[in-house]
Amino acid sequence: MIVFYADRVRDGLCYLPADESAHCVRVLRHQEGDEISVIDGEGTLYTCVLEDADAKAATARIVREEPDWGAHPYVLTLAVCPTKNIDRYEWMAEKATEVGLDCLQPVIGDHSERRVFKPERMQRILLSASKQSLKGAIPKVADAMSVREFITGCTAQVRLIACCFEGETPRLSVAQAIAAALPVAKPEIAVLIGPEGDFSREEVELAVKAGFVPVHLGVSRLRTETAGLVAAVAVYLTLGTV
Amino acid sequence: MIVFYADRVRDGLCYLPADESAHCVRVLRHQEGDEISVIDGEGTLYTCVLEDADAKAATARIVREEPDWGAHPYVLTLAVCPTKNIDRYEWMAEKATEVGLDCLQPVIGDHSERRVFKPERMQRILLSASKQSLKGAIPKVADAMSVREFITGCTAQVRLIACCFEGETPRLSVAQAIAAALPVAKPEIAVLIGPEGDFSREEVELAVKAGFVPVHLGVSRLRTETAGLVAAVAVYLTLGTV
Repeated sequence: MIVFYADRVRDGLCYLPADESAHCVRVLRHQEGDEISVIDGEGTLYTCVLEDADAKAATARIVREEPDWGAHPYVLTLAVCPTKNIDRYEWMAEKATEVGLDCLQPVIGDHSERRVFKPERMQRILLSASKQSLKGAIPKVADAMSVREFITGCTAQVRLIACCFEGETPRLSVAQAIAAALPVAKPEIAVLIGPEGDFSREEVELAVKAGFVPVHLGVSRLRTETAGLVAAVAVYLTLGTV
Repeated sequence: MIVFYADRVRDGLCYLPADESAHCVRVLRHQEGDEISVIDGEGTLYTCVLEDADAKAATARIVREEPDWGAHPYVLTLAVCPTKNIDRYEWMAEKATEVGLDCLQPVIGDHSERRVFKPERMQRILLSASKQSLKGAIPKVADAMSVREFITGCTAQVRLIACCFEGETPRLSVAQAIAAALPVAKPEIAVLIGPEGDFSREEVELAVKAGFVPVHLGVSRLRTETAGLVAAVAVYLTLGTV
């Protein structure tokens, strides 16, 4: 199933941006009257009829709409320190999108080697990942901030920090931490994952003070990007397998 | 931490094969008397002193040994149909190794597009993945067989088949299926994952007759290679987070 993305939906019409229009009309040779599938990136799938096969600005008339298309029953923010090798970070985000992700928050920790992150390329990757994994919603890519800024500003109902060392508070598994939180419909969950060099003790203490629950990701030593994906899968398996 | 692989361990000595010897002596410039870490691929980490810095056939004397180094408390066989794009299959195997994998069994299903698989390259990838993720054991790569051969020959204590459609038997989650099985120490678990076109109904019926438990991997539509990794993570989170 091929899905296109519309950056504007108004008055029963989906407006495809230039690159999506070119792919639809020039590459796939769709013509006026063809039925196409379009997502708005906010969660809805529109079944449309191509009305203007303009290879620069195609428009399609909505015939049917399906909200929450390919949705998961929670709202997940992954706050992960970008890896030195950015390809690994991109794969993690791509695979997490396929499993279930709502926001990718790049964070810079005290021990981060990579201290800058450009969101534009990542947003394109997640658009394509959402289309390929048949989801109506595209995860947001937030601007990078420091781990401390994220800790103090995070308002998710369930806030988890995956750290490699035992602190004052014993670490739970992700499933235990979610079970311990109050059951709410479609809970907002944030998981904070540190850099190759792990968090500083100060960061973990600040997080615990701010109500983050320290979690572990099992017995294996996982790279940052694998830890990010395993955390996304842990949340998915706890809440997304109903 | 840099880890080398010895294909022969005898009389207190680790014998490095040519490529590992070259990496140790020529690339990393280790000299006689240097302490190096060596795995035997069977689960043990040896701390050694380099005795013969031969760039073609280095040998190192064992000082300390640590069995079950980086081990997980179960034995997992992933029987996954190779994907059209083999990179995705290799990525899954690499990441599953990092999380916890003992045997990769390529299987060819009724609906498989890729019907041949060469294990040599995969074995090299899993060797490198095991070294990088600090594990003493390297997952075995079995020769490809048909899904039907695997189903009839599989002797694992817990046998799971992840299929996309509901059959006669309702599907459980991986955690439910493992919990339903008798608790044994270090259980042998096999998870069978189908090709892009899913299993044929006959394959699923044959599997159920052979005692395979049908499992689902949650609400998201997952690609074959993502399903393989999610299954490995599901087993890991159920048994490897003690």
